[in-house]
Amino acid sequence: MSTPGATFLAEIREQPEALLRLVEHAALYEDAARAAIERGPHIVRLVGHGSSDNAASYGVYAFGLEAGWTALRDSISLTVYYGAKLELERSIVVALSQSGRTPDVVAYVERARERGALTIGVTNEPASELARAADLTLPLAAGPERAVAASKTYVNQLAALFLLAGAVAGRTNEAADQIRNTAESMAEALPRFEDAVASVAGAFAYVGRMYVIGRGIEFATAREIALKLTETCRVAAEPLTSTDLAHGPIAALDPLFPVWTIASRDETLPTIVEAAQRAREAGATLVASGNAHSEIDGAAYRLPVPAAPSPLLSPLLSVVPGQLFAGVLASAKGLDSDHPVGLTKVTLAQ
Amino acid sequence: MSTPGATFLAEIREQPEALLRLVEHAALYEDAARAAIERGPHIVRLVGHGSSDNAASYGVYAFGLEAGWTALRDSISLTVYYGAKLELERSIVVALSQSGRTPDVVAYVERARERGALTIGVTNEPASELARAADLTLPLAAGPERAVAASKTYVNQLAALFLLAGAVAGRTNEAADQIRNTAESMAEALPRFEDAVASVAGAFAYVGRMYVIGRGIEFATAREIALKLTETCRVAAEPLTSTDLAHGPIAALDPLFPVWTIASRDETLPTIVEAAQRAREAGATLVASGNAHSEIDGAAYRLPVPAAPSPLLSPLLSVVPGQLFAGVLASAKGLDSDHPVGLTKVTLAQ
Repeated sequence: MSTPGATFLAEIREQPEALLRLVEHAALYEDAARAAIERGPHIVRLVGHGSSDNAASYGVYAFGLEAGWTALRDSISLTVYYGAKLELERSIVVALSQSGRTPDVVAYVERARERGALTIGVTNEPASELARAADLTLPLAAGPERAVAASKTYVNQLAALFLLAGAVAGRTNEAADQIRNTAESMAEALPRFEDAVASVAGAFAYVGRMYVIGRGIEFATAREIALKLTETCRVAAEPLTSTDLAHGPIAALDPLFPVWTIASRDETLPTIVEAAQRAREAGATLVASGNAHSEIDGAAYRLPVPAAPSPLLSPLLSVVPGQLFAGVLASAKGLDSDHPVGLTKVTLAQ
Repeated sequence: MSTPGATFLAEIREQPEALLRLVEHAALYEDAARAAIERGPHIVRLVGHGSSDNAASYGVYAFGLEAGWTALRDSISLTVYYGAKLELERSIVVALSQSGRTPDVVAYVERARERGALTIGVTNEPASELARAADLTLPLAAGPERAVAASKTYVNQLAALFLLAGAVAGRTNEAADQIRNTAESMAEALPRFEDAVASVAGAFAYVGRMYVIGRGIEFATAREIALKLTETCRVAAEPLTSTDLAHGPIAALDPLFPVWTIASRDETLPTIVEAAQRAREAGATLVASGNAHSEIDGAAYRLPVPAAPSPLLSPLLSVVPGQLFAGVLASAKGLDSDHPVGLTKVTLAQ
């Protein structure tokens, strides 16, 4: 038995090299992009659960901004449970599953393929059921992930969606280079992230609930950090957009209710700044992270993140302090982030 | 000054008559459906914030099941903040706003209309900015809503989406009749709902966090009940699908963490039953509501709901015990559900 949480931490540290492994497969991503372009008009249906669904939130922006394509997190239940007769012949399905064994994701791909969609499985296990069910398979190439809480497979899912969308836009090589540069920034920043998190996370040992605020490109990051805190630290952490906060949850805040804001430099930053100010006025304790954390006034804690080669790549870096924070906080609470209570690596729930 | 919470309660009780007012406008819904059918292939982009966004979750199923059309909760930030160049000429926008004044919903409609989408505003204020911005306006006809927490406008948004989707499917009159029948069931059930809730809500006075579980058609209900509890009772209530629960949040549960399950009779019910069982095994206290609550074993509290004329209409009834529960619990905690702290009726946040 290794130290509890050691595997999760080791896999977070491996993320830069996992990213470099992914881009070695750029030619496969280019082939898939070519097949996708042949369909039209272009609707990309993203499906996945847990961290994979969080990555799907990012895919909406990757395809929208890189390719001008509409991408949506599709309802699995509409197709798999209710048998809705949707027109799918012009759709491209991108199914995300680390294990390739998530039952209703595989079932969705089978139905969508029968109905004429081009189905692409993105998985860390290219010999899985998902790979057999889909027309095309793209490897995540993150290497084996053993901690129950996902880390490197999530970051590689973001990179995979960025690379696929970049390939659709005819700039595969540039996208691959940008991922390499991001991996380099991450490797440089990791020791600083670990130091910063170590001095902050301990203060959260008795926190029972938290909001994590992001918007647009960074909403995926808010979702993934909230999920890490929930599954490894037993904090009820809910992800919200800056606008969601103002439409209700602001009323629930008090000084014992921390709000973590992901502030990255892009067009939605003013909405995050405004949400943070409202949260502070409501008495909440603020954590500010992201490459524009300095725009957040009055944060009690700061977790700086370096700038990425483009705003669309920021989420690959922004999530890392959250992953590390979850690992440190879990240890401080005597929990094992490698094996959270009640969870297994492959979730076979419907 | 009226008794705190009296307006919210009165507006919940008005919901049956608000539904009857909506269906008087069925001819307008039929006109809009005709205009929508002329576009093709059919992608419906739903936008709204807060309760309106919860209604949008329902719209995905209303259009998918009634009309076989793909509907999505579109990203407002992609179009309004990032200026993505999406192809919108074949899209139908359905913008939901009680007040018709939500700034970035209006901005989204303006951009989408410029880019060629057919834009339909669904609002309780047919003389609003949204109505001026959109090609077509459909009235919610709920009557003035004065409590900050939405109730009858939410239920009428569901009915409006059902009626519009039904009109697209060529069955306007049948859909209108089904709404009338649902209104009748609601009026009959309201006194029973009030009794049931009164004997349950008090036990939740010291609850700080909660999950509300729904799936498919009823996920909108889970979102709306969670929002009511959060904004009026200051409970951090997070909506989750049954699958979301298994992919992480299950690890956070303990006996002080209630889980509210919406169990309605449709194809996703087995996933709710399974999620409830997992939650109970993890030690959570269960609340079971919906017309299939009896399928949930071991619930500590039950809030039965009558069957609707069709599964797609269940959410109009399922949400009501949640609304009433929020009102009663807020009063028990000394909070004013008509005027939650930090909220205003029209949210002008970005």
